Amino acid sequence: MLPYLEQASFNPSSLHWEGRRARAALEEARERIARVLGAKRKEIVFVSSGSEADALAIAGLAGARTQGHVVSSAIEHQAVLGALDALRQRGWEITLLPADSRGLVDEERFADALRSDTVLATVMYANNEIGTIQPIERLVAAARARAVAFHCDAIAAAGWLPLDVSVLGVDTLALAAHKFGGPKGFGILYVRDGVALEPMVRGGGQERGRRAGTEDVASAVGTAVALELAERDREERGARVARLRDRLEAELLASVPGARVNGAAPRLANLTNIAFEGVKAEALAARLDLDGIAISPGSACTSGVAGPSHVIEALGNGDPSGAIRISLGATTTQEEVEHVLQVMRSAISELRVP
Amino acid sequence: MLPYLEQASFNPSSLHWEGRRARAALEEARERIARVLGAKRKEIVFVSSGSEADALAIAGLAGARTQGHVVSSAIEHQAVLGALDALRQRGWEITLLPADSRGLVDEERFADALRSDTVLATVMYANNEIGTIQPIERLVAAARARAVAFHCDAIAAAGWLPLDVSVLGVDTLALAAHKFGGPKGFGILYVRDGVALEPMVRGGGQERGRRAGTEDVASAVGTAVALELAERDREERGARVARLRDRLEAELLASVPGARVNGAAPRLANLTNIAFEGVKAEALAARLDLDGIAISPGSACTSGVAGPSHVIEALGNGDPSGAIRISLGATTTQEEVEHVLQVMRSAISELRVP
Repeated sequence: MLPYLEQASFNPSSLHWEGRRARAALEEARERIARVLGAKRKEIVFVSSGSEADALAIAGLAGARTQGHVVSSAIEHQAVLGALDALRQRGWEITLLPADSRGLVDEERFADALRSDTVLATVMYANNEIGTIQPIERLVAAARARAVAFHCDAIAAAGWLPLDVSVLGVDTLALAAHKFGGPKGFGILYVRDGVALEPMVRGGGQERGRRAGTEDVASAVGTAVALELAERDREERGARVARLRDRLEAELLASVPGARVNGAAPRLANLTNIAFEGVKAEALAARLDLDGIAISPGSACTSGVAGPSHVIEALGNGDPSGAIRISLGATTTQEEVEHVLQVMRSAISELRVP
Repeated sequence: MLPYLEQASFNPSSLHWEGRRARAALEEARERIARVLGAKRKEIVFVSSGSEADALAIAGLAGARTQGHVVSSAIEHQAVLGALDALRQRGWEITLLPADSRGLVDEERFADALRSDTVLATVMYANNEIGTIQPIERLVAAARARAVAFHCDAIAAAGWLPLDVSVLGVDTLALAAHKFGGPKGFGILYVRDGVALEPMVRGGGQERGRRAGTEDVASAVGTAVALELAERDREERGARVARLRDRLEAELLASVPGARVNGAAPRLANLTNIAFEGVKAEALAARLDLDGIAISPGSACTSGVAGPSHVIEALGNGDPSGAIRISLGATTTQEEVEHVLQVMRSAISELRVP
């Protein structure tokens, strides 16, 4: 990324030679990202975050219509729920399907919810708090049978699940660069060739008119490399991290009375969401923080807010105030897991209200 | 910026210690930017580009209203014109005031255009193609007298004009970081305390609910430093660059028959927009490009498109296909100006159709 941060004059929208060099780097990044997604270069729209990708997909597929119907789930990320709220304010009707106790959206209920006025369905690939993986291909098939556009928030899935859009069959797919090792402040929206997308930011015609603004070449280049690296070792990394996560979870379930895991297989390899009877999530997170262990009560995506998670509430089988999310990374080691286990066990026994 | 690019775990919306460190850096950057603008920290919203800042201000001030009236000018940046087009599609009425032959919006015509249903006025501080500086304070006073919200696109002005929002009196003001030496892919929207702004991207509640998405701490930090540096030497730099620009312009006018400058004082120090009778702008730009001189036919902001400029067309006093924009920078030297003069003179005589 550094050459493109250091050289201020590289504006890819300029026609002169410095502009053309920046343009070439930008388009090479787009090509490399498209290849990982099994997409065409022109189907890749660069945006500034996963939240913007979700917002652009939902507002963009809804277009200028003053009313319509959307089918989604109650466990979507706030970026999706927020974009749906904006449609609701404009007069749209939104159906949020529940998840079952495992965290799965029921395929039959999804198909039944599609109506003659349904314009759009949006269901996440994998949940960012409990990790549950939705049956996207089958949901897409049901939507397609009713000519309903399908957006998929794949932000939590990136780096852990295959992202081949030709297999998933979605019309649009949102990714956030920092979730797979890329820079913060960058995102990707895949938009299937031929799908009409109303822009949110208009102006200089960048991104084929779908998102104006001088392009962030440095972040595009960094994101392309990060996505290739994330994809290259994905299966091996997933298997290794899942073993560590399973060990952490099994030990906590075995050694802490009243421990309960939220969400069930199929799940992402890197997440566990676990609640301990009689222990408040915020207190536990604060206590672990003192030992340098960064875990999250709820989701880091909700800015500085600690409170009951709408995801755990939607599962309907437990006390959301007790749930913590533990994320493992590609570099997490067995020793770190043992250390976290030891610290957690003593923190929980200190904090537990008898 | 580098520490925040290198340390992937710094998510300012996280509650743990790494998150708090990133949060502190983000808020320090916000404070430093606010100080340059004479604003409060909470009035600064970080976005991903100047175009997004314009779009968010215009869509955000328009809010959920299905109709209304906006007063603007025909020489606004495409980001503003695009946002106004989106309102027009929703049923709003848009009045685009002409500029006079100098490139100025007439204050009386502006005041007369304000109606009882006018919700919003948006006029740029200085034009990005011809540099003309609009009488923003007086336009704001007229708008305020009619209780009309005022957005100002200050993107081209940054680094060349004072940005004190308490003097300008605007409700919202848009800046693009790369225009004053900051990173590409970052922008600032000033939103006066108490002004309601409908968000475009909702979700995790970042930026006080005005713009969701994981924050780009590295770019915020870089932007704060760049803005401080741009402000520190602004007057001295402006005087020096204006002398060079005036010399370039005077020499071209004196030595090239049929040369004509578009726009007149008051102008930004760093721009000249000049047309040469019988010489096509694209051909001249391409010829100069071969000599390593990066000038722009029209505006770099319109992605890869060379064509008649809507700004020059709006002035109504010449052939827009002949106009080129020459931008000087803080580091432009007398020698570079002499070199450009020499190359331009011979290029023009080569290209000129008798």
